Amino acid sequence: MLVFERPSETAVASAVDALRKDFGERAVTSHSVREHHSHGEGMRDAGLPDVVVFPETNEEVASIVKLCNQARIPVIAFGTGTSLEGHLKALYGGVCIDLSRMNNILQVNAEDLDCRVQAGVTREQLNAEIRSTGLFFPIDPGANASLGGMSATRASGTNAVRYGTMKENILGLTVVTPDGRIIKTGTRARKSSAGYDLTRLYVGSEGTLGIITEIQLKLYGVPERISAAVCQFDELSNAVNVVITAMQLGIPMARIELLDEVQMDACIKYSKLEGFAAKPTLFMEFHGTDAYVAEQIEQMKSITADYGGSDYRFADKPEDRTKLWKARHDAYWAGMSYKPGNQAFATDSCVPISRLADCIAAAKAEIAKTSLTCMIVGHVGDGNFHVQISFNPDNAQEREQAETAAAQIARIAIGMGGTCTGEHGIGIHKLDALKEEHGEAVDVMRTIKKALDPNNIMNPGKTIPMN
Amino acid sequence: MLVFERPSETAVASAVDALRKDFGERAVTSHSVREHHSHGEGMRDAGLPDVVVFPETNEEVASIVKLCNQARIPVIAFGTGTSLEGHLKALYGGVCIDLSRMNNILQVNAEDLDCRVQAGVTREQLNAEIRSTGLFFPIDPGANASLGGMSATRASGTNAVRYGTMKENILGLTVVTPDGRIIKTGTRARKSSAGYDLTRLYVGSEGTLGIITEIQLKLYGVPERISAAVCQFDELSNAVNVVITAMQLGIPMARIELLDEVQMDACIKYSKLEGFAAKPTLFMEFHGTDAYVAEQIEQMKSITADYGGSDYRFADKPEDRTKLWKARHDAYWAGMSYKPGNQAFATDSCVPISRLADCIAAAKAEIAKTSLTCMIVGHVGDGNFHVQISFNPDNAQEREQAETAAAQIARIAIGMGGTCTGEHGIGIHKLDALKEEHGEAVDVMRTIKKALDPNNIMNPGKTIPMN
Repeated sequence: MLVFERPSETAVASAVDALRKDFGERAVTSHSVREHHSHGEGMRDAGLPDVVVFPETNEEVASIVKLCNQARIPVIAFGTGTSLEGHLKALYGGVCIDLSRMNNILQVNAEDLDCRVQAGVTREQLNAEIRSTGLFFPIDPGANASLGGMSATRASGTNAVRYGTMKENILGLTVVTPDGRIIKTGTRARKSSAGYDLTRLYVGSEGTLGIITEIQLKLYGVPERISAAVCQFDELSNAVNVVITAMQLGIPMARIELLDEVQMDACIKYSKLEGFAAKPTLFMEFHGTDAYVAEQIEQMKSITADYGGSDYRFADKPEDRTKLWKARHDAYWAGMSYKPGNQAFATDSCVPISRLADCIAAAKAEIAKTSLTCMIVGHVGDGNFHVQISFNPDNAQEREQAETAAAQIARIAIGMGGTCTGEHGIGIHKLDALKEEHGEAVDVMRTIKKALDPNNIMNPGKTIPMN
Repeated sequence: MLVFERPSETAVASAVDALRKDFGERAVTSHSVREHHSHGEGMRDAGLPDVVVFPETNEEVASIVKLCNQARIPVIAFGTGTSLEGHLKALYGGVCIDLSRMNNILQVNAEDLDCRVQAGVTREQLNAEIRSTGLFFPIDPGANASLGGMSATRASGTNAVRYGTMKENILGLTVVTPDGRIIKTGTRARKSSAGYDLTRLYVGSEGTLGIITEIQLKLYGVPERISAAVCQFDELSNAVNVVITAMQLGIPMARIELLDEVQMDACIKYSKLEGFAAKPTLFMEFHGTDAYVAEQIEQMKSITADYGGSDYRFADKPEDRTKLWKARHDAYWAGMSYKPGNQAFATDSCVPISRLADCIAAAKAEIAKTSLTCMIVGHVGDGNFHVQISFNPDNAQEREQAETAAAQIARIAIGMGGTCTGEHGIGIHKLDALKEEHGEAVDVMRTIKKALDPNNIMNPGKTIPMN
């Protein structure tokens, strides 16, 4: 077993019949629903699943997986459809398991700062439902993704520089294994040395080792004071150097986001931001006690002054902060609509912070070799940045230029000691980059995949190159 | 392949000959060296390896493992011999790989707050060698363990409440696989979504999946201010409730350690501490800017006052702090020598913080059923505590009582949503507890073990129950 083959039409038809029998109207074969479930927010080269099933319990998920395993039919888990690297494309057809009906918050342990949710709960839903406890869940990839999807892709986003990624914020999981068993990983303890760290193995496995159905998450107290600020620069390198200095000094920024002049131009237009120039810009957020936030802001002002930054614009009221961060979150859509008729796709690289300025410059130089426009946006406190490449999807040459440049940017990041993806994952688009980054270690990943999913039914063709 | 069998004497003799040929005086068969390498600091039911080899490079480690894999001879990695759960006992003889000669710091990237070390570098050596950079590595399990050993056991200790465990502080590894290949996991980027998280799989695998030979570690800036304080209480439950409150309020303690009245008595005697009573005691440390540390201390003083804590005794000078933390680190030895002729062993449990007081009380009640003495010491900010059980090793009944009580304490912690080990690992002593804690998930661990080490040569009989 190296590469999957599409199952026979008879096998699929018989599985669909069985699922219809078990799930009734919750097993859907309409084209529109299958199309909706065939892609994320990245490139839309859709591959349709044969059926979409909406289970409501761990046992129902297990029964679907068991059936698919017996019939050797692919299984693809679906959260909210916001992934970016083709994770959802049904390369060989099969059964899409939509987890959106598993959207219960099962347990909130306010006194222990943790909770247990079903995989279909979204991050915004969780934060709305726990608001009265004075706690929040910080991980914020921008999209209102499901917590199952965020776990499966090892998501992170704007708050990761302070609170870590999904990897650091999951205490345990319930997982349906490829043979349809329901297992639990981790515990509610904050740390454990009990056996292999299965939690971290499933986190980021992109649905290729099992289906995550429940997640035990860490929560945090809402800070006494949250203060957001924006600072603009004439030169991109100055903005980047501010970030590098802040990180080296250990200033505990909750968020520090960079937008270059093109991205700011796009965001000003898309989100109707007023009073900002289309210049390299840092969006920042500070969390803590009043005194501690004030101290952090003073430190940051002193650093930005050294690099010619503008005066700070503060957004301390919740509604002002929401507008600011919505504009940041909409940067992807601002990029998509920047040039009429064009679309954009966002590469995702992460490098050691000292190489960030060099890596961004090299990425821009790659794009400058083409006729394309690009914009930079990133979670730069972690050394993580995205190059949004705007191209005309009807122009094959532009598309090829965009893909070649993206591959080259991944290569540059790897060459600087970094990774081809800080948070978007491998999916189908970065299988070659994974090999380049990890060499023989990919064999170990493949051995694990074969051992845990011997029939290769779990999201086949994704994440781990099988040859 | 379920359980290992001791290899034939011919196979062993021939492997020892080959190793002597390749490594000369670095392949040692003397009884004293084999005995030294046959146990950690826990119970000394030594099982001797047949030979101890001292490699100096990744390639030498790979050549030893390759030879052992071909001859189906066990391989046990050895750092400084400070593990506690029988990890080093050569149950089936074999080759012990002592990594102490691989003690070079390969790279310090001060501007990125990371470094790369060989597995034999100890944490104290690392901190001494990087002192001039203004950086430090915080993870501190007490013993001056090797960083390879700390990685392999997912160690943590006193600073974990603020800085995380080894799991959170390793960016990547070099690992020699059971078939003798040298692979690299992770990158120098702060985060990555590239493929399966092999780093976290090897961290905590206790030498059963491969030999960790290099580690890429996060470093931190030495805080502007470090302040240590001690506060004493009349009631253990009050001390525990202070910890619970501090954690729930999110006070970023760098260290918060609990010693009960018996442990304090032992420590006062062993470390000649002056001016302390044999009462439940919290050892604390605060890190940050001057203002931030002052703010944290004020918050903590207010909490301890609510629970009847004594005035604070501060240790701000480095030499005073060193004395205080040395006493804390020597708690294990203080326990060992508390009763003449007795030895002690430390169980290790970790529970959600809200259950900490209950769990400690239940653990003490278990010991009260016996004729044994116990003392409590723990990294309580994480809900992690150790019960040191003092018993007469020549009294079979006492030993059995101690072991039964320890197993029962693990069961209690698991029942409270916690884990049978927060930081000491499974080794040979907690195989049953692992099954109790993880149920069917142990099958998944076993499948991984079999896939990655099909000949079961890597530290056989440890960590994962094979049946």
